[in-house]
Amino acid sequence: MWKHIVRKEDTVVDATCGNGHDTLAMVKLVVDESNRGCVYGMDIQNIAVENTSLLLDALLNPNERKLVKLFNACHSRMEDIVPKCTSVRLVAFNLGYLPGGDKAVITLSETTLPALEAASGILAPGGLISVIVYVGHPGGMKELETVQAFASGLPVDDWVCSKFEMINRQMAPLLVILFKK
Amino acid sequence: MWKHIVRKEDTVVDATCGNGHDTLAMVKLVVDESNRGCVYGMDIQNIAVENTSLLLDALLNPNERKLVKLFNACHSRMEDIVPKCTSVRLVAFNLGYLPGGDKAVITLSETTLPALEAASGILAPGGLISVIVYVGHPGGMKELETVQAFASGLPVDDWVCSKFEMINRQMAPLLVILFKK
Repeated sequence: MWKHIVRKEDTVVDATCGNGHDTLAMVKLVVDESNRGCVYGMDIQNIAVENTSLLLDALLNPNERKLVKLFNACHSRMEDIVPKCTSVRLVAFNLGYLPGGDKAVITLSETTLPALEAASGILAPGGLISVIVYVGHPGGMKELETVQAFASGLPVDDWVCSKFEMINRQMAPLLVILFKK
Repeated sequence: MWKHIVRKEDTVVDATCGNGHDTLAMVKLVVDESNRGCVYGMDIQNIAVENTSLLLDALLNPNERKLVKLFNACHSRMEDIVPKCTSVRLVAFNLGYLPGGDKAVITLSETTLPALEAASGILAPGGLISVIVYVGHPGGMKELETVQAFASGLPVDDWVCSKFEMINRQMAPLLVILFKK
């Protein structure tokens, strides 16, 4: 879905870097010879930012690596990190806990909601917010409710909000997509 | 999604022809110079079969038109219509009432369930059942429950069953996708 939306030289945001796999994929989507694309990555856990940085250092060339700006910060602080008037094409959330990390440290509705509000504000028309919600851990269902409540309240004239879920595998992660017209 | 699954020369089934727009789209997906593709179309309402036939006559060339076999029959009779041992790549359902037709005549859970069972039986591995469910009319919610119950019972080792729905437009139609591994 990202490939249908993101173009070379775009600015995009990985709101929850985790181990950096999405950040890496985003760089590949925005990079071209001009080196004008930009990826803002953030994570509240320092170990996640370090893991992301290591992954990018290993798999990107120096010009690609320069396109990424990493921040050890909560995704609810997105508006402080992304410069004002930046036209953002994609904001991606991967909620839950850090794979391989401390499962007691999870994203919480209290910060996910302001982060979604911030994302909806900085997103350019024609842009996308994608949210993966893991419902198989404690707190996951509450987070899904938060994301759904936010999405269902966005005006239908300006947003297409949809949910994609597996129905023959219990507790499978869900994808929520918020497209700004 | 159909385009990712259906190949030239495939056999596909439009289980609910309606006014024929999906049938037409299916022909375009399977046709090539060999004229070996095949589209089975069925609808319980004779007027729907007539509308579909008129649309296809108007918009297909004679070779394309020959690929379509239309039947005035309930979708639950699919197994009688599609020859045994046919390897079917796609079965599409568009549930609810005929657009522009009698809104009192709707697809019913009692026939939709056996139709889904038949479709799952004739589908080839790598094939897809797509179901559009309109929940905005009386009986629509019951039909969604029927489709979901059927899909959620398919074994996860053999099927990927998913649901796609809008969440900021009430009563929007839903898409249920059953992919046979």
